[in-house]
Amino acid sequence: MVTTTDLAPTPAFATPLAPEDLRLIDAYWRAANYLSVGQMYLYDNPLLREPLTPAHIKPLLLGHWGTTPGQNFIYTHLNRVIGKYDLDMVYVCGPGHGGPAVVAGTYLEGTYSEVYPIISQDEEGLRRLFRQFSFPGGISSHAGPQTPGSIHEGGELGYSLSHAFGAVFDNPDLLVACVIGDGEAETGPLATAWHANKFLDPATDGAVLPILHLNGYKISNPTVLARITPEELDQLLRGYGWTPYYVEGDEPALMHQAMAQALDAVVENILAIQHNARIQTDPTRPRWPLLVLRSPKGWTGPKEVDGQANEGTFRAHQVPLAVSADAPPAHLAQLESWLRSYRPEELFDAAGRLLPELAELAPRGNRRMGANPHANGGQLLRPLQLPDFADYAVQVPAPGAVEASDTGTVGQFLRDVVARNSAPRNFRIFGPDETLSNKLGSVFEATDRQWNAATAPHDEFLATSGSVVEMLSEHQCEGWLEGYLLTGRHGLFNSYEAFIHIVDSMFNQHAKWLKTTLEIPWRRNIASLNYLLTSTVWRQDHNGFTHQDPGFIDHVVNKKASIVRVYLPPDANCLLSVMDHCLRSRHYVNVLVAAKHPAPQWLSMDAAIMHCTQGIGIWTWASSDAGQEPDVVMACCGDVPTLETLAAVSILREHLPELKIRVINVVDLLRLQRSTEHPHGLSDADYDALFTRNKPVVFAFHGYPWLVHRLTYNRANNPHMHVRGYQEEGTITTAFDMTVLNELDRFHLVMDVLDRVPRLGNRGAHLKQLLQDKLVAHKQYIYRYGQDMPEIRDWEWGSEAQ
Amino acid sequence: MVTTTDLAPTPAFATPLAPEDLRLIDAYWRAANYLSVGQMYLYDNPLLREPLTPAHIKPLLLGHWGTTPGQNFIYTHLNRVIGKYDLDMVYVCGPGHGGPAVVAGTYLEGTYSEVYPIISQDEEGLRRLFRQFSFPGGISSHAGPQTPGSIHEGGELGYSLSHAFGAVFDNPDLLVACVIGDGEAETGPLATAWHANKFLDPATDGAVLPILHLNGYKISNPTVLARITPEELDQLLRGYGWTPYYVEGDEPALMHQAMAQALDAVVENILAIQHNARIQTDPTRPRWPLLVLRSPKGWTGPKEVDGQANEGTFRAHQVPLAVSADAPPAHLAQLESWLRSYRPEELFDAAGRLLPELAELAPRGNRRMGANPHANGGQLLRPLQLPDFADYAVQVPAPGAVEASDTGTVGQFLRDVVARNSAPRNFRIFGPDETLSNKLGSVFEATDRQWNAATAPHDEFLATSGSVVEMLSEHQCEGWLEGYLLTGRHGLFNSYEAFIHIVDSMFNQHAKWLKTTLEIPWRRNIASLNYLLTSTVWRQDHNGFTHQDPGFIDHVVNKKASIVRVYLPPDANCLLSVMDHCLRSRHYVNVLVAAKHPAPQWLSMDAAIMHCTQGIGIWTWASSDAGQEPDVVMACCGDVPTLETLAAVSILREHLPELKIRVINVVDLLRLQRSTEHPHGLSDADYDALFTRNKPVVFAFHGYPWLVHRLTYNRANNPHMHVRGYQEEGTITTAFDMTVLNELDRFHLVMDVLDRVPRLGNRGAHLKQLLQDKLVAHKQYIYRYGQDMPEIRDWEWGSEAQ
Repeated sequence: MVTTTDLAPTPAFATPLAPEDLRLIDAYWRAANYLSVGQMYLYDNPLLREPLTPAHIKPLLLGHWGTTPGQNFIYTHLNRVIGKYDLDMVYVCGPGHGGPAVVAGTYLEGTYSEVYPIISQDEEGLRRLFRQFSFPGGISSHAGPQTPGSIHEGGELGYSLSHAFGAVFDNPDLLVACVIGDGEAETGPLATAWHANKFLDPATDGAVLPILHLNGYKISNPTVLARITPEELDQLLRGYGWTPYYVEGDEPALMHQAMAQALDAVVENILAIQHNARIQTDPTRPRWPLLVLRSPKGWTGPKEVDGQANEGTFRAHQVPLAVSADAPPAHLAQLESWLRSYRPEELFDAAGRLLPELAELAPRGNRRMGANPHANGGQLLRPLQLPDFADYAVQVPAPGAVEASDTGTVGQFLRDVVARNSAPRNFRIFGPDETLSNKLGSVFEATDRQWNAATAPHDEFLATSGSVVEMLSEHQCEGWLEGYLLTGRHGLFNSYEAFIHIVDSMFNQHAKWLKTTLEIPWRRNIASLNYLLTSTVWRQDHNGFTHQDPGFIDHVVNKKASIVRVYLPPDANCLLSVMDHCLRSRHYVNVLVAAKHPAPQWLSMDAAIMHCTQGIGIWTWASSDAGQEPDVVMACCGDVPTLETLAAVSILREHLPELKIRVINVVDLLRLQRSTEHPHGLSDADYDALFTRNKPVVFAFHGYPWLVHRLTYNRANNPHMHVRGYQEEGTITTAFDMTVLNELDRFHLVMDVLDRVPRLGNRGAHLKQLLQDKLVAHKQYIYRYGQDMPEIRDWEWGSEAQ
Repeated sequence: MVTTTDLAPTPAFATPLAPEDLRLIDAYWRAANYLSVGQMYLYDNPLLREPLTPAHIKPLLLGHWGTTPGQNFIYTHLNRVIGKYDLDMVYVCGPGHGGPAVVAGTYLEGTYSEVYPIISQDEEGLRRLFRQFSFPGGISSHAGPQTPGSIHEGGELGYSLSHAFGAVFDNPDLLVACVIGDGEAETGPLATAWHANKFLDPATDGAVLPILHLNGYKISNPTVLARITPEELDQLLRGYGWTPYYVEGDEPALMHQAMAQALDAVVENILAIQHNARIQTDPTRPRWPLLVLRSPKGWTGPKEVDGQANEGTFRAHQVPLAVSADAPPAHLAQLESWLRSYRPEELFDAAGRLLPELAELAPRGNRRMGANPHANGGQLLRPLQLPDFADYAVQVPAPGAVEASDTGTVGQFLRDVVARNSAPRNFRIFGPDETLSNKLGSVFEATDRQWNAATAPHDEFLATSGSVVEMLSEHQCEGWLEGYLLTGRHGLFNSYEAFIHIVDSMFNQHAKWLKTTLEIPWRRNIASLNYLLTSTVWRQDHNGFTHQDPGFIDHVVNKKASIVRVYLPPDANCLLSVMDHCLRSRHYVNVLVAAKHPAPQWLSMDAAIMHCTQGIGIWTWASSDAGQEPDVVMACCGDVPTLETLAAVSILREHLPELKIRVINVVDLLRLQRSTEHPHGLSDADYDALFTRNKPVVFAFHGYPWLVHRLTYNRANNPHMHVRGYQEEGTITTAFDMTVLNELDRFHLVMDVLDRVPRLGNRGAHLKQLLQDKLVAHKQYIYRYGQDMPEIRDWEWGSEAQ
């Protein structure tokens, strides 16, 4: 049965392929299927030159057959339209374990052997190709960084379509064919990714062709989209704003004709939409086409195994046929007949090379999907044109003398980054509707939010093309940015600090991609993924507890030290310096945690540059140790902890002027770690020179206090390190009260010093009592009036610093 | 304009409300709106008895007006149908900041004053009600745990619909009205949550009425669903399997009639579906109704502010009208006229109490949505009927003498937990299609996977009703389980370890809910949320690097110690004991990390019970310190680290029999923390008695090694603690090679001991060389053959232990 349903705008039962074309395309598909089964099973005898014996079988059979033949079918047919229409196409393999298909496809077109010469296009190369699959020291069962042409790893599911859209933003000539598994389609991120068509500009962006592959099953369950009625499925896809084309069936000859017909129609539809937008300058949001391929799971595999149906059922998900000493002996023969059903002798020559008449079906050069330069984006990466960040400096005549919004300041810098790179169009800012809330609104002087759904009279900053893309889905934003970076561009994700945990898992996978590609010689480094996190834990006036979580950085530092960086600039000039550095950096994940509310500024631009270059340093202007061994080290990291520490120092200097205090501020968090553990880590000697080996350290930290302990447990003065941070205590309250609730406030910090520095005598005890009384009064005041004590302002950093 | 579009099956322009009913329902809505504006603005003069002055205004104006009047409208009309049809209804407030609406609704119906008597139903109560909102020490702008009737916190968006479905599973008489914001609807989790209708049994489960509230804007952007064509929206919702009913407009009188008409139709449709399934026993999957309410953002608020349109635009999102010393003075008068537009003098009596004719509109007793017992599920919680877990014990004649699958064993226990609780129907297992893969397949002897989409001949274990619910969305599974627990039932989430990070952020919010409700006297404790994580980092034969991440437990331990527990049982009998404990526990998040592959078993059931009760202990049968001070402590936590540690001990005991080794196994991870930091933490004295104060400790840990350092940095022997764990090194390779790559293998552990124990002399050096040679040989072997050295089996735990 083949149906191109009457819902789709193409005529049914056409035969676009001439008989010889049909024969060749089927042979090419058989070759890909043969290579796929070979990867799962064969340790030797790759061309079946001799009868199959147990010695030819891998000792441990791993792999996922189910999705593979359908993807081979798609890849083969995409090759045809690439040639016919001269398309610049990248292939995204969404289904989890489609590795064998993409490996087969890129091997047949020649790119695999070009990047891995040892996997040559001959019998020995085939042997190695088969052996390496799901084998120690070999390749995994997903398409991934090792796979030529891939910008997407098929491990954790759900991000293929967002990656595909990210790739085509600002790439008007690119077409990404994105295969989406019907299992993957059940995930939340994929379910909302369909809406990306409301954010694509058909004139200045490229196009995505989603290919929803309905093979009906996940590991052991059916899939939802394969088990709703065809009418519901059609409504759903049209409701998402697409025009679906259907190719359904299992008879290869008919399916080849249907697929060729549908793909021609789909590509012509895409080209017509682009013509309409670019030449006719029609601004209407198009209904882009998508393809639904309904084919049996494990198509062309064993119909039955041990009397149970296999092809077309969940049993075809992984290795359909056990072949081992424990398995029924007949399985070996069944495997041989399965392999021979692809007629390898008609596909490969005596040397084991694909026959020329078949090899000719593949596109040429960089048109081959495995060789598309967009899929190795570092090749295309051009540095950003950056204005001098010092031009945006806040003038700070003395520490604490002026207030400014840190993100508001960096927003002006980002505005000009957008403007300077508007010609290459290679910089975008992504976020879930928080760019204004995060005080980055200056960028809207230079660009708009890209939006291609309907508009209304009172909308602001919307346009069909723009450098800011906002949708209320952190998953979508992260996936878009990743796709944008992986294809050789630059970008920034701005988000509320607490809710960036939504993409913890996506960060994981991107970090793993970066780590792995560092080890792959032919992969080029890409621009860093930059997170600007604001609306932080300490400033949640109307949001409260749900919006308080500084733990993303805990999550990040578990990834490989070679690719993660964490910065907590204490003021606007430091944020400018760090942002400039991050936008120039390559192949990292940079996390910047910064304040958005107006707050005291500490460092001049020159001082900020020096401080950020070192990443950590003594603030001599706030210290009273005068270059001597201090009595106590007061360290701080993050904007609010810095403010509270400086206020605490003020109190101490007023009441105990003889106390030798050293103030250390940390911008680059991973300076705290040992140099043997992180490239930014301080040597023990340098660390000890700052923190001393045995003096008390009172460390006020932006996040969970244990993170500092985790980074410093093996330093000499670990026993003297006392860290204050967020203790998971929060509610609707004032900014100052938040610090009191978590004992990070100036009063607690002073008391921590008093508890740790010996010989302070009566004056220490007196001061402690004074502060305890103030805390009690504060609590009563908060309870009664809901406001901080007016007099706490007296304690804030002021004239002392000047 | 009011349209009940021709797409919906109800006649347009009916007038179900008689004039007097219309007058009353509009007055009730005005009362709710008045209370909402009052919460945002009024510090005093709650009934406008005197002209408004600046002294009556809160010093800091916070809150979100935009969503509120629409939700007041919904709540008011739901009250009407609850009464008319005697419905058992819970209200879920999906839009982020709908707190004022739910607070107003529950205050008007009386439940608010019942749980918070200080917020009385009089003028003083109104003053307090207004003052506490978004005020220090008061309540946040979301519906949340403090809000009567709530099972859903409106902080992080996306989970309302999954929570609603979780609530109605196995609650056949319950109807959850779930308001979904059009911002929230853009999130991934919400976008896939619509598909939950394929998993609901209309006979044995209750019903969810989604109310999609299209008010058009997020913070500063329009929403996607409000800016696609009505046809697309209709296709989308029908494609998701629902029958949409539309209520659209802004003229109150017409909207009341349309809403009453639509809600009657919707409720009757739901009742008819249930009748059809329950009485007619029709197994067809129904197309449940849903309601779309399109009303202006900030409906009934200021039309214009300072010449800019407000009602119906994004500017109505938060506080529409600034009233402060800095704002235009005319704003105060505009606020007063806005407040008076609701005519409070017609709503409240002289004492400030809602007029009786209005109060009568609310449902009675537990039918009031704020008083529904399902929304305080601990009230309804019944203990599980648990079989004796010891009956499922693996017989372990000697440590290491037998192999078994740990999760396979606990699967048999879970099968009987399912069976014993099939009558109360209060236990479910949720997961993303991995119950079989995770070796819990025994449960399918007692139940099926609940599935209400189409079935096919070769499906397995599917039924319209069952205790296992699987969809390939960790978000959906987590949301379902949370909703199920919050309404007083029990459950388990089983997942691959690496991918549980997908719900990091959902875990955060649930953990915050648990922590907060501990502090609310009228909230009752609920059953714990139990995660069973398997397919762990160390056993990923065909998946490789993407599937390797043990960091969820790092994430979990950042939450409040009072509610998180982490267990890593080393074998099947320990897993049985821990699982039984977790299923009996209340109000925790329990994380269980366990092995699924057959592996050596160490402890008899009696020994396992004793070990798990202590949570940490010396394994004397593996130790050679004979109760004396050891030369070295070898600690282990997790199944693979335990195996490698025991193998290392074997090597050491063979080669250096005089070495006094103490073997410690950790089941309950948080025993490592100080007792002052976690309720399960050991005192320093107990910790030192186990680990010594100054002997080297070689700790083989399942997860990232820094987690152990973070937990133990302040213990006396921190300088001597050496931890091996996952270092983010992984690929497709053998199980043993994974440990080598991360230096957790037996050879490295032995070398760690040799490096740390002094005076081992030549024999130590000789052994070290031997092991280094073995590692080199292993690497060569892996490279050449892709298999571990055969002789490594000689090192595995064997006769030495017996």
